[in-house]
Parts: sequence; C-alpha cells; structure tokens
Amino acid sequence: MNNTGLPPTAKRVFKGIIFDVYQWEQKMFDGTTATFEKLKRPDTMVVIPVVGDKILVLDQEQSGRGKAFISLPGGRREEGEDSAKAAARELLEETGYIAEGLKLWKEEMPYENKIIWTVYTYIGRNCQFKQPPHLDPGEKITPRLISFNEFLLLADDPTFYELELKADLLRARFDSAKKEELRKLLFA
Amino acid sequence: MNNTGLPPTAKRVFKGIIFDVYQWEQKMFDGTTATFEKLKRPDTMVVIPVVGDKILVLDQEQSGRGKAFISLPGGRREEGEDSAKAAARELLEETGYIAEGLKLWKEEMPYENKIIWTVYTYIGRNCQFKQPPHLDPGEKITPRLISFNEFLLLADDPTFYELELKADLLRARFDSAKKEELRKLLFA
Repeated sequence: MNNTGLPPTAKRVFKGIIFDVYQWEQKMFDGTTATFEKLKRPDTMVVIPVVGDKILVLDQEQSGRGKAFISLPGGRREEGEDSAKAAARELLEETGYIAEGLKLWKEEMPYENKIIWTVYTYIGRNCQFKQPPHLDPGEKITPRLISFNEFLLLADDPTFYELELKADLLRARFDSAKKEELRKLLFA
Repeated sequence: MNNTGLPPTAKRVFKGIIFDVYQWEQKMFDGTTATFEKLKRPDTMVVIPVVGDKILVLDQEQSGRGKAFISLPGGRREEGEDSAKAAARELLEETGYIAEGLKLWKEEMPYENKIIWTVYTYIGRNCQFKQPPHLDPGEKITPRLISFNEFLLLADDPTFYELELKADLLRARFDSAKKEELRKLLFA
C-alpha cells in the first residue's frame, strides 16, 4: 500500500466522470487470494465562511435532486489544484465572497476502506463580498447568514449536507470548553 | 427519479465486485444537459448486540488494511436477502451469537446524492452465544464486551468504523434524556 491508498498492483478498471474503480488481487490471512475493489474520487473542499459575527450557509437545490438541502460552500478539487486554492475558488464561485485567510481545520477520509477521498474543511476568516456568484447550470443556491448558535443546531437538520461536521457541532453544543474552542477558531 | 434512486434513463456503465456505476443525461436548470454519475452498492447491516448488560464490539483487522479498527458486527446484504436476515447472518458469522430479537433502529443513506446505499442499524436484543464464528479468510476478528458508558465513548475513537452512529453516541453522552432513551432501547 503506497501513499495513494492503493497497492502497487492495483489496476484502474473503470474511469468515470467522478468515480474511478480500481481492482487488485489481495492475499488473505490464510494465504488464498481474492479480488479487492476500491474507488477513487476527487477530494472535496468545505468552507465555513465567517462574515462578521455570522456564518454563511447555502440553501441549495440541484438538478435531478428532489429535495432542497443546506450546505456550506465547497466542491471538488480540480486535477493538480492546491486544496486552499480550490476552497477559495469554490467559495467565490458559489457565494461571491473572498476570505481574508483560509485556515485548514480538518482533513478526513470518510469510508477510507472503500473510497480514496479526502474532505478538507477550511475556516474562511473575515469574508467580504466581492462579486455576484458564478453558479453551475445544475445549481440553485441562496446564501444565508446564521448565528454561531444556529450553526451548532445544524447537526439536528436531516437535510444538512456536511456529514463530517455533525460530530463537531454536537460536541461544541454540549461541551462548553469545545464550544469556546470552536468560537475562537471561527471568530478570533 | 423512481424508487431505485435513479432516473429511468440511467444506464449501468460498469459492473464491479461491490460498486456499479450508472450514468444518465440530466437536464439542468437552464435547459442544457450534462452527464451525471451515481454509484450503487449493496446495502449494509450494522448490529448492536446486547449481551446481558454489555455490548459486543469487534476488534478487527482486514487483509490489505494496515490499521486495526473497532467495529460492530455487520456486513453486506446478499442479492434478494431480507435486511433482518442479513443482520442475523452477519452477527452469527462474525461473533457466533444469536439475538432473541432484532429491532431495526435506523435506516440511513449516507452521501445519497452520489451513492445508492442504505445502512440499516439493528439492536440485537438479549444475544446468546451459539457456536464459534465463521470468518472470511480476509478477516481477523476478536469480540469484546464493553459497558454502555464505554460504548458511548466510542464516538471519540478515530478507529471506530461506524460513522453513522457517532452523532447518536454523542447525543446520548451529553443529553441525559437521550441517554435514558438509548439505554432503554438497548436493555429494556
């Protein structure tokens, strides 16, 4: 297993628009072998944009997706793109805002057993509106400013898109030390 | 979009060992079209096995996976298999235990925007040991009994495999009403 998350013998058996599929022969504990399969997809960026004492969230609809949902700005990293640049680009495209500074908060690989995929969560410090958003034709996005306490309550919203943040929001809501830590991280 | 989670025009473009890939032409909000892609994978079962006043968790290693991790019993539903039967089968195979009753607690679709995949979480009430486990050659599993409070602390363990349970464990840990609710669900 090298730092790509795949053994050197892994072969790409399908190249998709988002998902590539890799397979390889894996030696089992008993000496037999079996064909293993793993996906690779572009890394994604999530930005928590701080605007004054508020946080900017997005009410979203997407083509072909029945339900409206709430998300943070973000999206896929392009081939060869630096993660901080990708985060700044997605923030600007989806909201029209620019952050004074982007601080990497978390780097996680959900379901890393099956998918080679990293989710980068950035704090967008002191964001300022620069220009109208530039949306994909498949997106309908309405930015909305909410308070820190409203932000913590998003963990209860079944339409909240950012699964990787749920546990952090719950901890901050119920543990006053964690709450102050997150407040400082966002607003200090 | 029908109840398979795919529009009727979606075509399977790749059939894998675990993951199938579907694509279709999606009409955008501005009338243009784009090719969309979505995965389909077998549903998975997770069982919380209750043994007396303890909960049975698994210390696991898997072939080709460097790090050891902690999980609950569970696994993939086989083609056409009923979800409760799949949960009972995985529980027996991985631990050798049988539950007096399996209660469906949660049914979730993580990343449903991109993957057609349901995670069923069952409570295995009053489990009794029946026979030695029957493991896949790619699995090394050591069952371990832990207390209810130790179970709630698993949300802090970065090697805990069951991402869908993290928020529930945190709520129960910090909110005494939620804690009693979960205690009753498991032990009543």
